[in-house]
Amino acid sequence: MIKLAARLALPDWIRQEIDAHPICPGDEAKVALAIRLSALNVERGTGGPFGAAVFDADDRLVSVGVNRVVPEASSIAHAEMMAYLTAQASTGRNRLNEGFPGIVLATSSQPCCMCYGATFWAGIDTLLIGASATDVMELTEFDEGPLPADWRGELRARGIAVREGIERQAARDVLAAYSRVGGGNY
Amino acid sequence: MIKLAARLALPDWIRQEIDAHPICPGDEAKVALAIRLSALNVERGTGGPFGAAVFDADDRLVSVGVNRVVPEASSIAHAEMMAYLTAQASTGRNRLNEGFPGIVLATSSQPCCMCYGATFWAGIDTLLIGASATDVMELTEFDEGPLPADWRGELRARGIAVREGIERQAARDVLAAYSRVGGGNY
Repeated sequence: MIKLAARLALPDWIRQEIDAHPICPGDEAKVALAIRLSALNVERGTGGPFGAAVFDADDRLVSVGVNRVVPEASSIAHAEMMAYLTAQASTGRNRLNEGFPGIVLATSSQPCCMCYGATFWAGIDTLLIGASATDVMELTEFDEGPLPADWRGELRARGIAVREGIERQAARDVLAAYSRVGGGNY
Repeated sequence: MIKLAARLALPDWIRQEIDAHPICPGDEAKVALAIRLSALNVERGTGGPFGAAVFDADDRLVSVGVNRVVPEASSIAHAEMMAYLTAQASTGRNRLNEGFPGIVLATSSQPCCMCYGATFWAGIDTLLIGASATDVMELTEFDEGPLPADWRGELRARGIAVREGIERQAARDVLAAYSRVGGGNY
């Protein structure tokens, strides 16, 4: 039977993290939360080593995401996509920054080609990145996919600021730890 | 309240189309169904002028998608993404062609940067395209976003065949008709 709808869900343990981090001032705290979620996701066995979070202009948490590809049987369920999906479901806005300027996405690792593309339509003003795509491909078996040569410039040309290498070592540590324990399934 | 899950749904009328087109042999019939869905989506007022469908190696329909960005308040809800999401929900496979080679995505218009990226991870062997990105940007106000310079080569390098311009005029006609009646909301 062909289904006409799909539901993607985050793990239950994540509610506690949301409650514990309602406000994250500064770039470092925002990416640190994304990295913490990436580590916990591996620790709890609920997905791959990637985390993300959306914040409003007052540093308030709007949504979180972790990789759920295998548990949810969905190639769409990357951390950034889960964060966008649940942010939009929570706010009812398909462009998060429409009427609410200053929306930030913090992600533990540079978005792959899908999440990169999704970032243009989600309504984000600032993209904060921990580990680079090179880090991901050096430390894990994940493919980041093809990006435009000037991927940063394409974002900036559409009004999306990009800041990279935030808490990079911490993000790299989670990726390396994931690969040491076997990884591979997400 | 921050939500931990999101559900994206296709319109109810689409069940009838699924039942009417269980098998579509040949590239033209596959893209023609995607275009038909794009036209009906506008006609019924259930989303933007884009349609898509996933088929297996025996030309059997696996899933369908139409643009649902505004009705579902989700920037993720493009036609191709809806087709991938519901195909994976129906089959329980995050890579649609794992153990089932020969999966085809037919789309009424060239995938945007997000849907393009998603195509690498969804488990597709062949991508069939109606209207080009140039057609979309000439005939409507939609932005297709940035792609790698050799976007076709990147797909082919990962084993995904690309065939373009299938039923192109019919696809262009739907885009042009959409813009004539005002369009703009999706």
